[in-house]
Amino acid sequence: MKDKKAYKPCDLVIFGALGDLSRRKLLISLYRLEKSSLLEPDTRIIGVDRHAETNPGFAQITHTSLQEFLNKEIDDSVWKRFSARLSYIKIDLTQPDQYEQLHKVIDQKSRVMVNYFAVSPVLFKSICQGLAKSGVLTEESRMVMEKPIGHDLASSKEINDEVARVFNEKQVYRIDHYLGKETVLNLLALRFANSIFTTNWNHTAIDHIQITVAEEIGIEGRWEYFDKTGQLRDMLQNHLLQILTFIAMEPPVNLEARSIHMEKIKVLEALRPITINNAHEKTVRGQYTAGYLKGKAVPGYLEEEGANKESSTESFVALRVDIDNWRWADVPFYLRTGKRMHNKRTEIVVYFKQLPHNIFKDSYRDLPPNRLIIHLQPNEGVEIEMLNKIPGIDEHLKIQKTKLDLSFSEAFKKNSIFGGYEKLILEALRGNPTLFLSREEVEQAWTWIDSIQAAWAHINEAPKPYAAGSWGPVASIALLARDGRTWEE
Amino acid sequence: MKDKKAYKPCDLVIFGALGDLSRRKLLISLYRLEKSSLLEPDTRIIGVDRHAETNPGFAQITHTSLQEFLNKEIDDSVWKRFSARLSYIKIDLTQPDQYEQLHKVIDQKSRVMVNYFAVSPVLFKSICQGLAKSGVLTEESRMVMEKPIGHDLASSKEINDEVARVFNEKQVYRIDHYLGKETVLNLLALRFANSIFTTNWNHTAIDHIQITVAEEIGIEGRWEYFDKTGQLRDMLQNHLLQILTFIAMEPPVNLEARSIHMEKIKVLEALRPITINNAHEKTVRGQYTAGYLKGKAVPGYLEEEGANKESSTESFVALRVDIDNWRWADVPFYLRTGKRMHNKRTEIVVYFKQLPHNIFKDSYRDLPPNRLIIHLQPNEGVEIEMLNKIPGIDEHLKIQKTKLDLSFSEAFKKNSIFGGYEKLILEALRGNPTLFLSREEVEQAWTWIDSIQAAWAHINEAPKPYAAGSWGPVASIALLARDGRTWEE
Repeated sequence: MKDKKAYKPCDLVIFGALGDLSRRKLLISLYRLEKSSLLEPDTRIIGVDRHAETNPGFAQITHTSLQEFLNKEIDDSVWKRFSARLSYIKIDLTQPDQYEQLHKVIDQKSRVMVNYFAVSPVLFKSICQGLAKSGVLTEESRMVMEKPIGHDLASSKEINDEVARVFNEKQVYRIDHYLGKETVLNLLALRFANSIFTTNWNHTAIDHIQITVAEEIGIEGRWEYFDKTGQLRDMLQNHLLQILTFIAMEPPVNLEARSIHMEKIKVLEALRPITINNAHEKTVRGQYTAGYLKGKAVPGYLEEEGANKESSTESFVALRVDIDNWRWADVPFYLRTGKRMHNKRTEIVVYFKQLPHNIFKDSYRDLPPNRLIIHLQPNEGVEIEMLNKIPGIDEHLKIQKTKLDLSFSEAFKKNSIFGGYEKLILEALRGNPTLFLSREEVEQAWTWIDSIQAAWAHINEAPKPYAAGSWGPVASIALLARDGRTWEE
Repeated sequence: MKDKKAYKPCDLVIFGALGDLSRRKLLISLYRLEKSSLLEPDTRIIGVDRHAETNPGFAQITHTSLQEFLNKEIDDSVWKRFSARLSYIKIDLTQPDQYEQLHKVIDQKSRVMVNYFAVSPVLFKSICQGLAKSGVLTEESRMVMEKPIGHDLASSKEINDEVARVFNEKQVYRIDHYLGKETVLNLLALRFANSIFTTNWNHTAIDHIQITVAEEIGIEGRWEYFDKTGQLRDMLQNHLLQILTFIAMEPPVNLEARSIHMEKIKVLEALRPITINNAHEKTVRGQYTAGYLKGKAVPGYLEEEGANKESSTESFVALRVDIDNWRWADVPFYLRTGKRMHNKRTEIVVYFKQLPHNIFKDSYRDLPPNRLIIHLQPNEGVEIEMLNKIPGIDEHLKIQKTKLDLSFSEAFKKNSIFGGYEKLILEALRGNPTLFLSREEVEQAWTWIDSIQAAWAHINEAPKPYAAGSWGPVASIALLARDGRTWEE
């Protein structure tokens, strides 16, 4: 715990405390933070929901959630500390008058009020109104929200506008849990602390970059919600674009939120629009059909429970993204994400340029390029693929690929790795906004995504089928093949 | 043994077969090559020396040498194959008439005659004359010689001239066993097969380079010889300059001997001369005094057996070397080599430039540069030192140094690593001259070294004392400190 800074304790108010997000993720993460002694001793957790519930009742629900979702034994002494923080207030979130009750518990003098909106965005407006009316907020108060922040630019603006009536932008913490992952954060260190990468991180050294977010899961009982959204808006608009901005941004002046947000926005603004004119060659939409995943038969998208057989929503999307700036001219970013893919895998692969001349032809006819491979899921890690001489006296300068694994490092073994979620909750409690999304970012991302959606609507083609358990439709392979490249498999 | 090429068998004639070099190194290496089935089945080994000895007697001497110097059990079946290759001829090497006898055994029709000069250079002239007179040589014949090839440019030319009367340059194989080391050869792969290094291998990316060849041993009973030579001529002229050329050379067009030799010569020609004008600031001479090595008291250079108490020969030398070409402008190479150093260590450290701006000040006030560390002795290996984020939720973008070890690679575990000596003997038997020194190289190296010797002679200062078991005189530290740098320790 060396170098531990003291932070001001919080009153963390969870709106929707008895809901799915709260019970499956938020309370579990808070318990894990407690276990690692990362919560300030005076921080309190106040559950708010519409059901009548007592303080002990809320503690009991929390305990049951831990039993169900923690995947570990509950430590009694940790639980004792943790449960002492918990209290509950019944508020019908649609009734602004009821927020008055918060005054009974909230202590704005020695604690910062952190309002976690763990509910559907349709309730954001009334929560904001209720909070405003109650007068419980101060300038120090914060609010935390998660995706989806709208389903297009207009709806996203609507949500942000509602929130902005009560919270100024500095008070708002928008979570994308990918930004809390160790390896995404390590991208900053890799890129900006190592001259061998800093000097090579541009179009003269890099050929192209691939970002893959492959899910094994299908629709999991939320067919209706997903069908209105699609993979582009559900996954690419947030997670993949966020990863992209971290890879592509210019070196920020410092690690302050403002510097990083500005650089991220610059990347989003430089994304070449995909429109009716080029959507055909730069995008691939797919929809899974019945297939096999790890030997088990699984239904197609249109056979899922509650499915509308006519749906043409995409469960897979692949894009060629061009960034029109000095650094990335002629360096395509290939993005793909899909459900029911061959396996769960999130990774970034940076392909450096092939060397222009090969003096090792006898050993390697086509010298493979250096690659930097960043794994986010299922395991986190970073590898550098290089070429080395094969040791041995009989093999005159034969060379081969060698992977250097950063996870071999001592440092990576010592510390248990937290998920992105814990990291971000902790940062919100600490009041460090660097790893959260600014309103500008979210809206710029939607602007770019809306153009693709509009192009697709105009082209009006059915998505390409792909068998569940495959790597997506053939057209996705063709997308890279046209450029003389292949997906990492 | 996949990809094994067939080479023409040889008649390897060892001149000085009963001498130290032959018994301690050459025969041992040949046995090891036999053990790995790397000698062509029809290759024969013919010992030549002035002592009366029978074929079985020579085999017996070889067997005894193996017992003494192999450091392993002799494998009976390998020995059976190996000893069947051996034969012996008595020749007084100073008597040109006696070489006639070689005709009795040498078979120039189906074998290549490889003449290994394992004797003092004073005998080279008469061996060459004897071989010429006998008429046993053909254009295919080769000769192999080792350092020292002279002690200055004039004496080196003399030897090369003698050899050149009988062998043309293409027939001559000059050995520096450092060039047979795995890691030196891997330098070619690292530099020319990996774009992340190829693009970074110059003055824009590299700050400076250190080459250390530290010996633990002292003079080991050859005081008189060494005292006439000194560390500059004994170690730096050959081994350190050879390593330097491999690091500094321009990318060769291919791996042919001609291409590589040309690039190496270009480096040697671009070495900025060290003369009377700058020797003071660019060189350090040292001589060890009594001290402790691994807890054991050892005598000083002037107290060694047979020492002349007045000697001012250097047992340590450190240089700042500048290479006046486009690639290495303002990138100093610091070379140091010495006897009775703290431990046996040969290594190359490439210091990349420090990043111009540090956004991780909270974690690292002075961001350490990336380094590539190439170990040659005692163990061979390559490491890259990079900076990574320390995993852990409580440490916001704290970074630390991580070493990536190429030896972790599978490839490095599979193959037993041979010494440089075996590699080079095999290459000589195969007729591949790439890893040997050209006459031009040797002479260019002497030209540069002679200038330093002349400057020292003119300045006429006693060498700086350093305690045995230390890292050399304080002046060596000051050499780098003046440039704001420090030796790797």
